Amino acid sequence: MVNGIERPLDLLNHSKGKEILVQLKSEKQMVGTLLAFDIHINVVLDNAKEMQNNEIKRNVGLTFLRGDTIVFISPASTALKEEK
Amino acid sequence: MVNGIERPLDLLNHSKGKEILVQLKSEKQMVGTLLAFDIHINVVLDNAKEMQNNEIKRNVGLTFLRGDTIVFISPASTALKEEK
Amino acid sequence: MVNGIERPLDLLNHSKGKEILVQLKSEKQMVGTLLAFDIHINVVLDNAKEMQNNEIKRNVGLTFLRGDTIVFISPASTALKEEK
Amino acid sequence: MVNGIERPLDLLNHSKGKEILVQLKSEKQMVGTLLAFDIHINVVLDNAKEMQNNEIKRNVGLTFLRGDTIVFISPASTALKEEK
Amino acid sequence: MVNGIERPLDLLNHSKGKEILVQLKSEKQMVGTLLAFDIHINVVLDNAKEMQNNEIKRNVGLTFLRGDTIVFISPASTALKEEK
Amino acid sequence: MVNGIERPLDLLNHSKGKEILVQLKSEKQMVGTLLAFDIHINVVLDNAKEMQNNEIKRNVGLTFLRGDTIVFISPASTALKEEK
Amino acid sequence: MVNGIERPLDLLNHSKGKEILVQLKSEKQMVGTLLAFDIHINVVLDNAKEMQNNEIKRNVGLTFLRGDTIVFISPASTALKEEK
Repeated sequence: MVNGIERPLDLLNHSKGKEILVQLKSEKQMVGTLLAFDIHINVVLDNAKEMQNNEIKRNVGLTFLRGDTIVFISPASTALKEEK
Repeated sequence: MVNGIERPLDLLNHSKGKEILVQLKSEKQMVGTLLAFDIHINVVLDNAKEMQNNEIKRNVGLTFLRGDTIVFISPASTALKEEK
Repeated sequence: MVNGIERPLDLLNHSKGKEILVQLKSEKQMVGTLLAFDIHINVVLDNAKEMQNNEIKRNVGLTFLRGDTIVFISPASTALKEEK
Repeated sequence: MVNGIERPLDLLNHSKGKEILVQLKSEKQMVGTLLAFDIHINVVLDNAKEMQNNEIKRNVGLTFLRGDTIVFISPASTALKEEK
Repeated sequence: MVNGIERPLDLLNHSKGKEILVQLKSEKQMVGTLLAFDIHINVVLDNAKEMQNNEIKRNVGLTFLRGDTIVFISPASTALKEEK
Repeated sequence: MVNGIERPLDLLNHSKGKEILVQLKSEKQMVGTLLAFDIHINVVLDNAKEMQNNEIKRNVGLTFLRGDTIVFISPASTALKEEK
Repeated sequence: MVNGIERPLDLLNHSKGKEILVQLKSEKQMVGTLLAFDIHINVVLDNAKEMQNNEIKRNVGLTFLRGDTIVFISPASTALKEEK
């Protein structure tokens, strides 16, 4: 997938339908399936879970997340497996 | 509903008339029926309740909520039932 | 009134001449009669009172309030009666 | 004066040449005579005094105040008389 | 000079070549001779001194100061003489 | 490379495919291979690692990082070797 | 050089190729040779050093620094010599 990324939003486009990890400015994370995003990096996640210190805090289901609260977004698989 | 979401605002459009949970940057939540929203994610809720630590702090009724104070918005049913 | 709200600013338009509660980001509230507002959610209140912990801190009379300091706005009647 | 206020900036226009109270986000206030303002709510005050806890901290004379540091602006008379 | 101020930036224009006091959001001040400014309130000061609690912390000489870090700007003479 | 830098974004363009250090406002760092960036300084890193106090906190793999959370970006080699 | 400064960015233009001190909002400083800047005050420094309390914390070499993290920029010579 790395070869198809010319612009930052290409990564989000490739991640549609996949589980992503969203790091929030508040030190919490959201994990869920990426359904949609826009140029403000607003995203919609399905089956979203709010996490803190590697524990699920809340299941919030289908969720709209404002872009200006986000630090980074990564496909969740790597992050969850290798986290210490 | 998941299939009808092409852009993030589609989720808000589908949620009109339904109860939603709004997580605020201040660590409080607002729960109420979504009546209207705009591209700034300003929203109007009916029968809005301000919540903190799973308790209702104030009934504020019909309420205009500024978009820049919002972290995420989700239909309230899942969030309330599964919250620990 | 709920039926006439298509866009968030409609609620503010309907509230002109009525007493509103304005929750500020600083944890204070302002209560007063809404005279005017604009698209930045700057508002002018008449007979404005600055409140904290349900007590009036200051009477500030006719007041211009910057929109970017606001969390939410609601007609004051419900909020004041049902507040715990 | 209340009848002549259609838009929020009308209140500032009516207050030119009068003493106003400016509440800053830093919990300080500035009191002075309003000479000029613009759409960013930048203001120029004459004979400005920086106040905190109802005491004058500094006389800063003719002063340019950036709009994005302001919470609210009100004609000073009411606020000063009734403040507790 | 008061009569020549129609817009807030007029005060900065009148202050070119004079010593000004710049209050920063960080609770520090900068004092120096105003050489230039723009609509973002970015300013260039000559012989700038960083001050805190009425003491000079650093001489920083010719300095570019970003507008979004500024609370207020006033000609330094009044502020320094009358400060308590 | 220094001679080819006329504008700030030229440095990011020269760094594509190389490992970079990204200092975040939260006092954490991200290290990874720069794949893409845009004018908002949103970046995509491959093999990204979240670091704090010179230790790897999490491997987050392919990651989209929002520009407004960034303090500075530098090619990682110098920073890692000479850090005390 | 003072005479050639009509607008704030003129100072940055005159400082290209010279060592500058950049004060960050985080209370840290960056010192390095200015290679490039843009209207957002994004800058590229060569041989950049991150400093705190007058001590070098890290050598970060060639570095892109985001404008919105900057308080002020001054040619480093004066600041370093006269700092207490």
